[in-house]
This record gives sequence, C-alpha cells and structure tokens, in this order.
Amino acid sequence: MARVYNFNAGPAALPLPVLEKAQAEMLDLGGSGMSVMEMSHRSKEYAAINEAAEANVRKLMGISDDYAVLFLQGGASLQFAIIPMNLRRPGKSADYVDTGSWASKALKEAKITGAVNVIWSGKEENYMRAPKPSELNFTPGAEYVHICSNETIGGIRFPVFPKTEAPLVADMSSEIMSRVIDVSQFGMIYAGAQKNLGPSGLALVIIRKDLLDRCPEDVPVFLRYSTHAEEKSLYNTPNTWAVYILKLVTEWLESLGGIEAMQKINEQKAATLYNLLDSSDFWRTPADKESRSIMNVVWRLPSEELEELFVSEAKKAGMVGLKGHRSVGGLRASIYNAVTQEAVDALVAFMKEFEAKHG
Amino acid sequence: MARVYNFNAGPAALPLPVLEKAQAEMLDLGGSGMSVMEMSHRSKEYAAINEAAEANVRKLMGISDDYAVLFLQGGASLQFAIIPMNLRRPGKSADYVDTGSWASKALKEAKITGAVNVIWSGKEENYMRAPKPSELNFTPGAEYVHICSNETIGGIRFPVFPKTEAPLVADMSSEIMSRVIDVSQFGMIYAGAQKNLGPSGLALVIIRKDLLDRCPEDVPVFLRYSTHAEEKSLYNTPNTWAVYILKLVTEWLESLGGIEAMQKINEQKAATLYNLLDSSDFWRTPADKESRSIMNVVWRLPSEELEELFVSEAKKAGMVGLKGHRSVGGLRASIYNAVTQEAVDALVAFMKEFEAKHG
Repeated sequence: MARVYNFNAGPAALPLPVLEKAQAEMLDLGGSGMSVMEMSHRSKEYAAINEAAEANVRKLMGISDDYAVLFLQGGASLQFAIIPMNLRRPGKSADYVDTGSWASKALKEAKITGAVNVIWSGKEENYMRAPKPSELNFTPGAEYVHICSNETIGGIRFPVFPKTEAPLVADMSSEIMSRVIDVSQFGMIYAGAQKNLGPSGLALVIIRKDLLDRCPEDVPVFLRYSTHAEEKSLYNTPNTWAVYILKLVTEWLESLGGIEAMQKINEQKAATLYNLLDSSDFWRTPADKESRSIMNVVWRLPSEELEELFVSEAKKAGMVGLKGHRSVGGLRASIYNAVTQEAVDALVAFMKEFEAKHG
Repeated sequence: MARVYNFNAGPAALPLPVLEKAQAEMLDLGGSGMSVMEMSHRSKEYAAINEAAEANVRKLMGISDDYAVLFLQGGASLQFAIIPMNLRRPGKSADYVDTGSWASKALKEAKITGAVNVIWSGKEENYMRAPKPSELNFTPGAEYVHICSNETIGGIRFPVFPKTEAPLVADMSSEIMSRVIDVSQFGMIYAGAQKNLGPSGLALVIIRKDLLDRCPEDVPVFLRYSTHAEEKSLYNTPNTWAVYILKLVTEWLESLGGIEAMQKINEQKAATLYNLLDSSDFWRTPADKESRSIMNVVWRLPSEELEELFVSEAKKAGMVGLKGHRSVGGLRASIYNAVTQEAVDALVAFMKEFEAKHG
C-alpha cells in the first residue's frame, strides 16, 4: 500500500494520524464494543464526542458564548437554501457579493425565496479577485451581507473581510481553520466539512445567537437554525461518524499548535507553489496576486494538451487531484490543512521537471 | 476487544464483515492510495461506488426504471419537511396517517407549510396498532397519503399496506429491506440509513419519476427532489462515506440471499423474542399482536425499577441498547438486519434467567 499525494479540492486529504485512529477504533470505540457508527446518538459515549467536537471548535477559533456552534447535514448547499429562509424576514432583502461559482450558487438560492441585492460581482473580470472594502456599497436595511470567503474554483479569497453594519455571513468551506480570523466580526460562518474539517455530509455552522430569533414561523422545524441550536445539534440523528472524525481532526490541529501555527504552515506551503508559478512564463496564474487563495492554487499551462499531460504524468508520479474544476479547466492544487509541506515539495519538484521537459 | 450484542434503535448494529472491510480499506481503497473519505465525489472511483450502491438497492428491492433512487442527506427528518414542499402543490392538501411518534413528526412539518388531513390517528389508543385498510377514508383530491410503515418507538408496523389512489408515501426508516415489499404500490419510499442500511447522515429516497414534476418553482433548488434525480445524487457533495458503507451493507445482504432470505431470518428472530414475551405474565407487550413490528420489539416489566435493573444487568452481560425510548419508557430490542439470531438467542437466555430471579 502506498498513499498518494492528495490535492483533491474536496472531499480532500485527511491527516494520516486521524485515519489511523479511526481505523484502530472501527470495531470498538474506547472499550464500548461498538463502532461509533453503531452508537445511539443519545448515548453518553456519543454525547461526549459531540461536546468535545464543539469545545474543540470553540477553543481553536476563539468563539464566545454569544454564538451557537452547530453540526448539521447537507453541506454548504443546504445552507445556501436555508440562510435566507432563516435570516431574511418577510419583505426584506439581503446583500450578496458575487466572487465566483460558490457565491453565485448561494445567491441563486436566495433569489428563489426573496429579494437579493448583488452589491458587487467579479463576473465581468472572470472572477479573478475579491472586492476591495471600498468597492462595497451595502444596502440600507438589508438583513445580512453574504460572502464566500474563499472560492475553491477560482482560487481567490478575501485578504481582509469587509466591515458591515448588517450581520456578515460567510461561506468558509474551503478555508475554515486555515487562518486566524476574528469570529466576532461575523453574524454567521458556515463550512462544509469535506475540505478542512473531516468527511463530507457535515456542515459546521457558527451563528450569533440573537439571529436565531429571526426565523419566520412558516419555515419547517427542521430547516430552522434555532431548532438545532436548542437541541445542541441533536434534534435528529446527526452524521455521527463525521462529527467523530471532525473531533479527531480538531484534536490533530490542536496538537500542531492550533490555527495560528497552521496558518504559518499554510502560508509556507502556498509560497512554495506561488514562487514557482511566478518564476517563469510557462506557468500562468489567473488570480490577482492580492486575492490569491492559500488553499486552492490555480494555474494554466501554455496549452490544454500540456495540461492534460501534466495531470496524467502527475498521477503516474503519485499525485492526484490536480485537474482544475470542470467549469474553468486548467490546473489546481488544493493544499488544505492536511496536505503536508512534503506533498507540496514533491509537487514543486515534479513541476520543475515538467517545465524542464516541456517548457 | 469484545464486541457487544447491540440492540440499539439507531444508529444501530452494522454487519461485522462490513466494518472489517471498511477498516481494511481505511487508508487505501482499492489501490487508490486514499480513503473513500478523501476521494473526489466527481472521481471515477466514487462514481463506481455511487452506481453500485444504486444498482444494489434496485436489485434487492426490485425497483423499476419508473423510480429514481437517491442518496440524500438530512435523514428522514429533512424528508418530513420537504415532502410536502415537493409533492403538495399550492392550494392542495395531503393525507397523513398518525401511527406514532415518527408519523406525528412528519405531519407536524407538513402542517407548517400547508393543508393536512389526519385521516386516522392511533393516539387515543396509545399508538398500539396500525389501522386496518377499512378504517382509512382518503380525502378526494389529496396529493398523497403519508404513512410511517414501522414505528421504531411504539414497536408497531403495517402488516399490509393500504391501497391508495393518491401516491402512497412511506417512511420505512426502521424496516427498509427487512421484508419483501412491492415498490410499485408506492409513490415514494424513504428511509434514514442508520437502522438497516448503514451509518447516520444518509437518507435513501425512492420516488416515482412522474412526481418529480410537481415541485413548485419557489422551492430552493437544493430542496427539490428533481434536482437530485437529475444529477444522480451528485448535485452537491454527498455523504460519500455513508454511501460507501451502504454499498457494503447491500452487498452483504445480497450475499445472504437478498431480502426474501433476510425476511425469514428476521421473522425467526422476532418469533424467538415474542414467543418468550407471550409465555408468561412477567412480560407485557403493549402492541397489538397483528401490528407487532419484527424490527423493534417493545415490552414492559412489572415495575420501572425492574426495568432499570434489566437494562443494567443486561449491560453487564454484554447487551446494550435495551432501554425503551425516553418518551415511552419500558424496554425495547431493535433487531435489525445486522442483529444476528445468536444475539437474540443470547438475549432470550438472559431474559429467562432474569425472569427466574425476579419473576
């Protein structure tokens, strides 16, 4: 068995120690005689996992008691649908910033159920950058401002977050816990788990408690954030396996020194790649330098044929997940928390060889 | 390490060979160098898993091409909310049969977004039976008839399903694939996976394709069954781990001889337990004999003190999950597909000893 270097955009690489622990505990978690998948979500054993996972998230991100921390299902896509149902009261509107594929999906859902103001769009510029704070004109009376803090497909991020009067709601799926942020600047943060937190099928939702009261009464109970906050993510059977893996991932992150330490590692990994990409015209990076993501590094080669060759040669060399998203083409390396500097170094070495041969 | 006899109501026991295979493949699924959790849901490897899982479900249950087979998130609880949003068009109503805790939850959600006719309720009789077909008076023009085919908490089931003119929609969470059914009798069947199919965080939805067109345009894209049918459960990132486990579980079921063989085993397991429960007044079974579930066997002892003692002594003897649901008390053994005759025999032997001591 040889593990590959995994640059998948999501579901993505998990820390090897996490997988090994999950493997060891598969038939018997902590002397229970069961897998975590076989435990009642109402058992003491699972309650301890649920509480530890929440405590780890709170500690790592510095989240105050003003916020609820929820483990929900449906990924970020379900949140796209229910954020407006919960936070935009009847007759009101919400501001959306359109930075790319994921921001667009969120605003598409919001448009179906009510009024949306697209206050900035990068579409005309091919989504190559995030807006500067000065470019954002918020709508008076808007219920919230929605952003996607890191666009997985375009490979761009907000270097700094806008200051908003209305609650700022951020999809952080592809960069959650990769850099230090000030949670108190946000009304709500959410993230599909399958990039930096664990397996797919789980969404982390961090929501300011005063916003829980906004939800209109004609929204089904299950689709209300208040329901899940009241029941501490145990209103219905949660994705217990994914919460268990998230607990292991957050313990692993803590053992590395937390998010501050992780950010330094991530910045180093990204610098290693961007330094090579900036070193010659063989590589072309569409994203504006200031908006470059440190999680999803996107680039092009002189031809699509070379790009295909790159992907297939890389695979032979034990590196997978380097094809750009089908909607934009090109190449992409997703270098999430669990992707090591060693993996990035191996990729860069491969790229140098590839350039020497084809450049 | 000693595995317990697991009678949990859900999440529940999984087949040991499935856990062992998942354990063996944790770091490297089929030579990919990755866990299934680390694979792109757009990869060929995962597409093969998704297709095999669907094919297994179709084969085992004999599902025709008139139906879509979907793997969704949010468990049965999300379906409670979105079934009426999808299938009950504006200004129309739906019929609900109230057989217990889960049927009630489904109809509670349906009431929030529109008109519901409760055409039968077992509430006054403490939910001890399912209705006879002759007791059901369907509402002319109702968009569908909703039932919960097996009530996990009350331990009752529909021995036969009603013939309906409107599409019959059934929550089969706690008995899916435990007995042979005629899918063509239903408009939609759905089930949380965490009882008979795999881990929590996954819902199996089987829906007649003509019903996909009913969904009004003001329902968010993610909440429409048509979206997931068009994209073959890959509209967004699915719970890939759970689909993978479901694939293994359905392979295991096929290896035993399919649902017909499983039903015989299940009927034998249930008979073993009910025979003991009927053998003396020490045991009391609240459910009507005709409606007794073969998945969730519910009984009482002469006192709550004895019930508590039963649970704690059973735990010492390596048997877990025997406490009744907190809402009704008493005792319950959930004997899903993965619970072996050996486990039931061990439980019955323990019960005989307990009766000899305390009866």
